[in-house]
Parts: sequence; structure tokens; C-alpha cells
Amino acid sequence: MKILILNPNSSKEMTADIQRNAAAYANGAFEVKTLLTPGAPEFIDYYLDQALCAPGMIKNVYDNEAEYDAFIVACHCDPNIDLIKEITNKPVVGIGEASMKMASMLGHSFSVVSTGLHSVPNKEAVVRKYHLEGCLASVRAPKSEGCCGSDEALFMEAAKLAIEEDMAEVIVLGCAGMSGLDKKMSKALGVPVLDGVVCALIIAEGLVRAGLSTSKIRRYQGNR
Amino acid sequence: MKILILNPNSSKEMTADIQRNAAAYANGAFEVKTLLTPGAPEFIDYYLDQALCAPGMIKNVYDNEAEYDAFIVACHCDPNIDLIKEITNKPVVGIGEASMKMASMLGHSFSVVSTGLHSVPNKEAVVRKYHLEGCLASVRAPKSEGCCGSDEALFMEAAKLAIEEDMAEVIVLGCAGMSGLDKKMSKALGVPVLDGVVCALIIAEGLVRAGLSTSKIRRYQGNR
Amino acid sequence: MKILILNPNSSKEMTADIQRNAAAYANGAFEVKTLLTPGAPEFIDYYLDQALCAPGMIKNVYDNEAEYDAFIVACHCDPNIDLIKEITNKPVVGIGEASMKMASMLGHSFSVVSTGLHSVPNKEAVVRKYHLEGCLASVRAPKSEGCCGSDEALFMEAAKLAIEEDMAEVIVLGCAGMSGLDKKMSKALGVPVLDGVVCALIIAEGLVRAGLSTSKIRRYQGNR
Amino acid sequence: MKILILNPNSSKEMTADIQRNAAAYANGAFEVKTLLTPGAPEFIDYYLDQALCAPGMIKNVYDNEAEYDAFIVACHCDPNIDLIKEITNKPVVGIGEASMKMASMLGHSFSVVSTGLHSVPNKEAVVRKYHLEGCLASVRAPKSEGCCGSDEALFMEAAKLAIEEDMAEVIVLGCAGMSGLDKKMSKALGVPVLDGVVCALIIAEGLVRAGLSTSKIRRYQGNR
Amino acid sequence: MKILILNPNSSKEMTADIQRNAAAYANGAFEVKTLLTPGAPEFIDYYLDQALCAPGMIKNVYDNEAEYDAFIVACHCDPNIDLIKEITNKPVVGIGEASMKMASMLGHSFSVVSTGLHSVPNKEAVVRKYHLEGCLASVRAPKSEGCCGSDEALFMEAAKLAIEEDMAEVIVLGCAGMSGLDKKMSKALGVPVLDGVVCALIIAEGLVRAGLSTSKIRRYQGNR
Amino acid sequence: MKILILNPNSSKEMTADIQRNAAAYANGAFEVKTLLTPGAPEFIDYYLDQALCAPGMIKNVYDNEAEYDAFIVACHCDPNIDLIKEITNKPVVGIGEASMKMASMLGHSFSVVSTGLHSVPNKEAVVRKYHLEGCLASVRAPKSEGCCGSDEALFMEAAKLAIEEDMAEVIVLGCAGMSGLDKKMSKALGVPVLDGVVCALIIAEGLVRAGLSTSKIRRYQGNR
Repeated sequence: MKILILNPNSSKEMTADIQRNAAAYANGAFEVKTLLTPGAPEFIDYYLDQALCAPGMIKNVYDNEAEYDAFIVACHCDPNIDLIKEITNKPVVGIGEASMKMASMLGHSFSVVSTGLHSVPNKEAVVRKYHLEGCLASVRAPKSEGCCGSDEALFMEAAKLAIEEDMAEVIVLGCAGMSGLDKKMSKALGVPVLDGVVCALIIAEGLVRAGLSTSKIRRYQGNR
Repeated sequence: MKILILNPNSSKEMTADIQRNAAAYANGAFEVKTLLTPGAPEFIDYYLDQALCAPGMIKNVYDNEAEYDAFIVACHCDPNIDLIKEITNKPVVGIGEASMKMASMLGHSFSVVSTGLHSVPNKEAVVRKYHLEGCLASVRAPKSEGCCGSDEALFMEAAKLAIEEDMAEVIVLGCAGMSGLDKKMSKALGVPVLDGVVCALIIAEGLVRAGLSTSKIRRYQGNR
Repeated sequence: MKILILNPNSSKEMTADIQRNAAAYANGAFEVKTLLTPGAPEFIDYYLDQALCAPGMIKNVYDNEAEYDAFIVACHCDPNIDLIKEITNKPVVGIGEASMKMASMLGHSFSVVSTGLHSVPNKEAVVRKYHLEGCLASVRAPKSEGCCGSDEALFMEAAKLAIEEDMAEVIVLGCAGMSGLDKKMSKALGVPVLDGVVCALIIAEGLVRAGLSTSKIRRYQGNR
Repeated sequence: MKILILNPNSSKEMTADIQRNAAAYANGAFEVKTLLTPGAPEFIDYYLDQALCAPGMIKNVYDNEAEYDAFIVACHCDPNIDLIKEITNKPVVGIGEASMKMASMLGHSFSVVSTGLHSVPNKEAVVRKYHLEGCLASVRAPKSEGCCGSDEALFMEAAKLAIEEDMAEVIVLGCAGMSGLDKKMSKALGVPVLDGVVCALIIAEGLVRAGLSTSKIRRYQGNR
Repeated sequence: MKILILNPNSSKEMTADIQRNAAAYANGAFEVKTLLTPGAPEFIDYYLDQALCAPGMIKNVYDNEAEYDAFIVACHCDPNIDLIKEITNKPVVGIGEASMKMASMLGHSFSVVSTGLHSVPNKEAVVRKYHLEGCLASVRAPKSEGCCGSDEALFMEAAKLAIEEDMAEVIVLGCAGMSGLDKKMSKALGVPVLDGVVCALIIAEGLVRAGLSTSKIRRYQGNR
Repeated sequence: MKILILNPNSSKEMTADIQRNAAAYANGAFEVKTLLTPGAPEFIDYYLDQALCAPGMIKNVYDNEAEYDAFIVACHCDPNIDLIKEITNKPVVGIGEASMKMASMLGHSFSVVSTGLHSVPNKEAVVRKYHLEGCLASVRAPKSEGCCGSDEALFMEAAKLAIEEDMAEVIVLGCAGMSGLDKKMSKALGVPVLDGVVCALIIAEGLVRAGLSTSKIRRYQGNR
């Protein structure tokens, strides 16, 4: 089995981080490869960024569809996920959707730790898109902006407040760039902390093995 | 006052129809101009189409921002509307949002008449995005596909069923290409029938005159 | 075009304020006249007040229906709005509904600034009636009661807390008596601040020009 | 204990029916008296009717507050219920609220049988006001208008469809004028059928015995 | 009329408290008896406890079905309530459901005072089960664990915060063991405070007198 | 890795079917074993059945906790799932929750095919418990009762209606006894058909490999 991770941005460093994290989970059980998106911004922060990475993501899907069994979109706002589900018959999993739906299975409510205050409403819109507002304790961001792995203490503080003030029982890391913080934070906080890439790999691997993929009957029918 | 209507597709015919319809409403009270989107598909039907029209729409906004007082996105699924709201400080109005929110002011519930069955769930997702599911009677489409002005009888039949079976009290035309059918259908059906371009012009003109625009504090802050 | 603003209370001063505010927006584009409600209380604060102003509002509608093209109900709890929509075929717009639905188009969520703590749940009930709870950040009132224009500092403080604590992106003035504060507050707060009378005029003028009015098929059918 | 039933309309016949029905339930355990509303229409069908009965209902409450222990509003749309709760410290129970909340305790979902198609959306608005839409199977009305006791067969047919098509498990009679049909319909349909007056008496008697009444802290504070 | 109160736990002391409280409300109008549950834990705190009390509750129902007219489940999480409604044709009332639905009739929103922080999400799940989240101000628990009557000051403090911080207008006592605190707390807090046993008796007595019981058509059909 | 499947009923035949189905999915990648529940009914159809299988399920968990890495509850109503999550620190996955949440990732909305009409509301209650009502097209059951693998044609017919009438895009098999029908039905229907046991194995295997389990901070804390 071969799973392709689409990193919607063009950062080589973040791509390498995601790949390292994914390979550690796969651990040889399946092949996994992470591609950066040519022509995309270095970081996906705004709606504009999401549009700018679409052409490169589409190209990456078309170029690799024959070879890979499933696609993962590795940015927590799941940019262009409906479009990717539409243009391929292979399973497509967003790290936002996968991690938040798995979070809802592990506790009464979850909080998303986001990178900056301005992205809190955008995350809330994504939560609502997935019909998850009933499971959401909060979206929390550090007061000062910052991304990603380098700002561990800020994210830890936001997560602590989510657990204590908002009654979150599970923490979801709200950025692919936070990859690798999950275990450390979970140990410190005493609750499950979910990394989106790991969650998406769980779902993607399972779908492939079970022979399942996106329903093509209406919403994701595409132009075929 | 000058309002620019962004037609997300590249159809000259539909652009002319929208312009005719818009000018009739404006009736000299303000200037209105409709631009097609260079590089976009002829018709916006799929998520892929929405991505393909983004670059041209962005260019149209940047090229015309200085000259125009407000922008309208004239496709009923409001493609790239969050992005357009983000990249300009001028008011931005989608014909989907405007028509459905105005419909909710004119009766207990509304139905959207869409062009094809495969787009029904996509429309429902848009309705939900705008928190309007509580006002929605149904999204109805003719059994056989077809767009747009040429298929009047099909849309009329769908609207009738929406009123009788789904208890809709207001009908929203779910495609910019249906422009011009509103008055005829309203007369035949005995309920208000809303054309999205007209509704968006109402909101856009009002916002300009009142000096109002998108909040830039968080969700639509953009990279400035 | 002639629009009649029904001020549900009997305060001459507030009626004059509303008229001044409305005329400034209309700016000659259409005629606008504000009527106080004979027999109504000086201020609409309680459910009892809403009932006491009904007979005078009904009379004002009946007496002026032939002459005017649209009616506006100019109290932010939209008293008797269903009834007014029912008894006339002309468009009827409440300043509560118009301002809150327009607020939902300008940002991720809005807060209503109300005059007193005891009215917070009543406002929440109105928000829910309009299916807007998903767009509501909060209803905020100053700790100490007070209305209206004279208490600018209190409302400003409540709005600031709404933006910072409740993540509101748009502020809605929750009382017709706050008319005139919108621009000053918007400038100070850096987010759109909506005056209900202005918003209702936008919608009412548009409905008249578009030839639209309340659906009479069921909920607002009336006894005709 | 003395309970006063406010019949919001002015029909002597319906008042007598309600009184007979109420006395049968009370069966000597407490006193019950039904008052028609002076100046109100013969039947409460429209929002206008609800406004027209307010002055008489207010007078009936003020005139009898000292003597009675609780008030019941005996029209299924609970006209002016917020106002009555506001102007008295005694418990106030609407037959709509009481019957629908009790229905939600007796089965998975309930349907309301209403008198006419035009009132279906109005009932739905009341259901929503009480946060009961999640327990509602449907509001059903006979195709042809008709009220009330005389149209038993029509209501029975509507109830049957609600049970079979809409999966209702409990039926709520949607008009005080249907009083007396509950047992007969329940026997024929095999599900509980709730009469609003009976349900309101259950709640009102209980509140009086338990020394409970409306919270006066904010929403129903009133002008005291 | 004879009503049987099923205390799901095996505490003799709490059973006696409930019986005393219930008898005081009944005041001779009907017979009431409280049974502890053989084989159940001393206190129902966890999901495990709810399962462990099921066999004894079932036995208590079967043994007493012929003799009693209605059953009350006297633990605020309503353990096994669906099951009890299923296995008997007699009315079954949970103190959680009864008290929270009655609370929703007495004010804009209610808060539940619970015994410990760990039970807050569990209570929220019960609130949601009954479709009451729209009426809920909050579930509040003292910071330090403690149950029940002995910790009056802690519960009072939690209730005060609910009223002031969460805008609750009605307080619901979230544990049968708090029986007897309602009047004292209500007097001190100035809002209605509901005891679940009293509320359940109101509903149960009314159902019996009205000849009503659980719908047996589908959800609570049982194996008969 | 060793996963234990708890079949809540005591049917040897259904246990063998589940085991065969599970082993086929596992395909050697991990160990899987299915246990019937001693003392449980042959089939879990009623709330009573759910209570009767609790003691045996608890015993099975306690007896095997040391040896197994995760537990699956293999009845589509997820009986006693909160309790099982509470009493063990190992991951616990219900086939209902897993299959419905995965269904929500594969299409716009899903329908559950259930075994009988009387269980439709019970399934709806489970859907609501998991906050999935926004993703639900319908719960459909054959008109005539019947379970499980032997009634393939009935389930197929129900699924067809769900897709055509209710606009479902994904089908969820609503009974562990339908195991093995998924691929055949999917082929015939042209949409994904989900088997709960397969979905639960996907999630359980992933949780174990990722080192994740139920949050023990509040709701599922248990008595430790």
C-alpha cells in the first residue's frame, strides 16, 4: 500500500517534518511519501493561501493517482479537500477532519490548539463544516502569534487553559507544523493529544485495506 | 457609486445576461459592471471549477479595487467568497448569501431551486455554512439536468413541489443563469422568487451608502 | 418611494432622533417618515410594553398603507413584527432582524449591545427566533442600566468586551435609541457597528425597488 | 387551590367546553374556573388575533391575581404567554408548552395536529421557541380547514399520517377547541394523545403545591 | 393512587431522605413509597454504577408493577430510564428529565448543580439526550467533590456562580441526595430551585390521573 | 497487537460470523478474537437486552484486560459503551460510533439500515448521542422485521430507498449480524456500504499503534 501525503504548502522543512512523523507511524506497514506543493505559499494561513495552493495540489493528485492508493491533505484547515475528493476515485483524508472526528471518539469534548488568534474563527468554521460543533470545547490560540514546533510552550499553555477553563478532554493539534509535539504534550497534560497526520494515516490505511472510498453518487461526483 | 459584479465563469452570454439584469435593477441609481473571469470554466458546476476560477477572480479584484466601491460574486454557490472578503477592504456580497438571507426575511422557510440533482448536497453545504438550515425548506432540482434560462418549465415544476411538498414560502433561484425568471415565476407561483444578483445589489448598494464593509479583525483579516 | 418608520414607543424625542438618522441615510433617494405610536409607552422595555404598543402600530399601518411603499419597525426587539407582516401586503422590515442578518454577512460572529442586563435573555430569544444563534458571539449589556444615547461610554465598554472576550467581529446596536453612535463606535473599535434603522432602510428600499414583499402563502397569510 | 384558565378568545361555547374538560380533570382536587377574554376575537387564528386578545387577558390577570393561585393560557399557540409570565408572580402555564413538553416525556417524538395548513409554520415557530424541534415529528393539519371538535375525522386522519409517515409516537392536540377528543383518539390510534388543558393543569397544580413560580431575575422580571 | 419511587442506589439513609421529601409533597393526596435497589452500589456516580443497579431496579419494577400506578427513578442521571419505560406499561418518570423540563418552563435558562467536576460532562450528555441544551445555562459543580446534603455551602456557591456568571434563571438540584435544600436555596438565591423528586411526583401524579403513559408503538415497545 | 471483540449477545453463530469477518480484515496484521457474552440474550434488540448483557461484558473486559490491547463492542447500538470506556484504560471502540463517523467522511450524508421499524427511533437516539444528526440522511428499516444475513433482499431495498428518497450517499449496516453484506451491497448500489466491525477494527488498530486511548480526565474517569 502506498499513501501520498499532500503538504499544501511549499516549505521543504515542514514537508520533511511531516514525512518523518508519517514514516514513524507507518513503521514499514505501508509506504508513505510527502510532497510539497509547487507554486504554493510557504505557509497556509489565509483563504488566499488556500486558493494559491490549489493548482499545485491538483497537479500532484493527477500526477500520482495511478501510483498511490490514498491521499492525505496535511494542513489542519483541510484546504481544497472537497475538490480533491471530487477529482479522484481514491480515498482522500484531511488531517483536520480525521483528527477531530477521532478526538470525538476519545472524550466528551475536544479543543483545537491553533497557531494564532486570527485563525480561531476560521477553525470554528471548519469545525462547523464537519458538524462537530457539539463536540467542540473550544479553539484556543496563544495570545501572541507563532508557528509551529518552535513555540511549544505557547501551545502547551493554550492546551492547559482549554482543559481547565473550557473543560476539553482531548486536545487536537491544529497545525501540521506541530507534528511531533503530541506525545510530549499528552504526557504533560494527562489527556490524549492528537496529531492530524497520524490520525489521517489511520483512516487512510483502513479505507484502503477495506476497499472503501468517497461516494461518487452526488456531492463528490465530479466531471466524469 | 460603482459596483463590480464578478461572474466567476467565462461565459460571455451569461455575463451579458447578468449585466442586463443588474442594470435593470440599478436603473441609473448607481453604476454596475459585470466581468467574466479569464481562465475560468464556462460554467461553475464542480468544486474543481471553483478552484479554477480563483486566480482570475483575484486578478479582477486587484485590477479594479481602486475604481469600484463594492464587489459581487455572481454564482449561487458563492465560490471563493471568503477569499475575496479577505483580500479587499471593500464590501463583498455573494449572491447565494444575499438571496438566502433575504429569503429568510420574507417567509417562514425557503427552497433553493438548483440546476441538477448532483448539486443538491453541495447547495445544502452552502446553506449550512451560512447557518441557514433552520430556514431551509429544501433544495430542489429537476430530475433531469439542465441549465439555465432555457429550462424554465423544469425549474417551475421543482419550485411548485418545493411549495406544496416541502412547505416552502419563498423560492430562491439557485443559479445566476436563471436571472430574469424571478418575476415570471413569482407571478405563476404566488410566492416571492428571489434572484441572487438583485439581492446582492440591494445589500452591496446599502453597505456602500452606509459606509460599511467586512470586519477585518480576525476571520477576514488577510495578510496586511 | 415612501418608507414609513413605525417607532413602537411614544417618545417624541426618540422619534425625532430616528427620523434624523433615517433622513441622513436616505439623503433624498427616497422619502422617509417616522411616526410615534399613539397610546404606547415612552420606552419599550418589557413584554407588556410590546403588547401595549400593538393597537397603535396596527392603526398606523392601516392609516398609511395606501400611501407608503414599505414599513419599518424601529425597536430592536422587533415588537409585533409577525403581526405587521401579516396585516399588510407591503414589505415590513424589523430593525432587529435586518441589522442582525446584515451583521452575519460582515464577519464571523456578532454581538448585540443591549441597554440592560434584564433584557439580555429577551434579546437571546429574538436571536433564536431568527435562527441566528450560530452567528451570535454574545448579547452584552452594561452592568448598570441605562438608555440610550446618553450612555455612550457604557455601551462602548460592553462592545469592547464583546470583541475581546466573546470574539465578536461585528457589533449590533441593540436599541433604536442608540442611533447615531454607530460611526463613532466603529471608528473607536475598529469593527463594523450596525445601526438597525440604517440596515432596515437598506432592506426596505431594496425590496420596494425589486418588487418583493412578504410571502402570503401560509405563515403571514392573514385574514383575507 | 384555585386555578384560573384564561381562554384567549371570546367564544362562550369554547369557554364552556374548556371548563367542562378542566373540571373533569380537577375532579374536586382543586377549584378551576375558565374566563373568556372580553374584546377578543371569537377564534385565535392569526397574529392579529393574538394582539387583539392581549388587553383583555391582561385585565383578567390583574382582576383575578389576588384570588387565584395560578393561571393557564388555553390556546395552543400560547398567545401573550411571555407577557402574562412577566406581569404576575403567580405561576403561568401555556397549554402549548405544557402539552408539548409532556409529550416529549412519553415517546421518542410527537406530532401536533393543527386546524389548518396555514397555521403549520406558525406552530413550528412555537415549537422552536420552546427548543422542542428535536422532539418534533411533524405538525400536521387536515388538507381542508376546520375547527374544532366537529372535525374529528379530519384530525384523526392527520394524526394517523403523523404516526405512520412521520414516525410520531405521541400526538398533541393543537387547539383548545379539540378538548375531549384525546381519549377517543388515543384509543383508536394506540398512542398517547395529549390535551393541552389537562397537561397545563397537571403542571399548574404541581407548581402551586410545590411553591414554585416563574423566575423573576431577568427575562420575566417585569416593571416592579 | 400509589406511586413507587425507585432509588437506584442501596443507601438506606438516602432512601429515607427521599421518602420523607416525597411524603411531604404528596401530603396525603396519594400514596408514595421509596425502595432502595438491592445489589446496587451505595451511591450512583459512574456508568458502572448505573449498570450495577439495573438488575435490582428491574426486579423492583416487576415485583411491584401490579400494585403501583407509576414509577419514579430517583437519581438525577436517570439511570436505566429507557429500560424501565420499556418493561412496564405504567408511567415512568425520571427526576432528571422532569426537573429539567419543568425548569425550562420557569425561566429563560437553567443550571444544574452537580456533586463533582468529573460528572459535569456526564450531566451534559443527559441534558443533550433530552434535547435541552438550548435551555441550559451550565452544569456547575463545586471545585471540591462532595455529596450531598452535608455540603450545602458548596452547592450554594456553585448556584450563585451559575446565576451571575452563566445567566441561569432557574437552578436544578443535580442529585437526589440534595433533597430538602430546594426551599432554603431558593430563598437565599431569589430564583426557583427545583428538587427532582418533587418535579417527578408532579408529572407522575398528573399522568396517572389523566390516564396517560409511555407510548408503546416503537421506541419503548419492549418484548411483548 | 491483540484486539478483543466483545459480542454483546450470546449467539455462537453470530460470534463466529463476526470473527470470520474480523479475521478477514485483520488478515494477519494483528490478532483478533471475538467473545460472546455469557448470560446475555441471543439477540440485543431492546433496552432490557442491553442491561442484561452488561454483567457479562464487564466480566469479559476484566478477564482479558491484561492480555488485549483494545476492545470493540460489536453491536450497532453500542450497548454499555460508556461503561466499558470507563472501566478500562485500553482503547474501546463501538461499531456504531466507528461506522457512522467514518461514513461521515465518505459522503455528504449517510443512512443506517436497521433490522426493524421499532428500532428506528432507538438508532436515531444513538445517532444524536454521537452528535451525528447533521450527517444523517435517515434510518431505514424493512417494513417487515427480520435479522440478519438471511434478509439481504429486504436490507437492499431499504438501502435503495435511502439513497433515492433520502439522498443518502453512504450506507451503514445497522447490525453486526449483517456482516459480510457490505461488499455485495456496495457493488449493487454504487455507494460505499460500511460494516461496523471493519470500521471499528480500523480505528482500534490505529489507536493502539498511535498509543492513544480514552481520556480519563472527567467523563470516563471511573472509580480509580
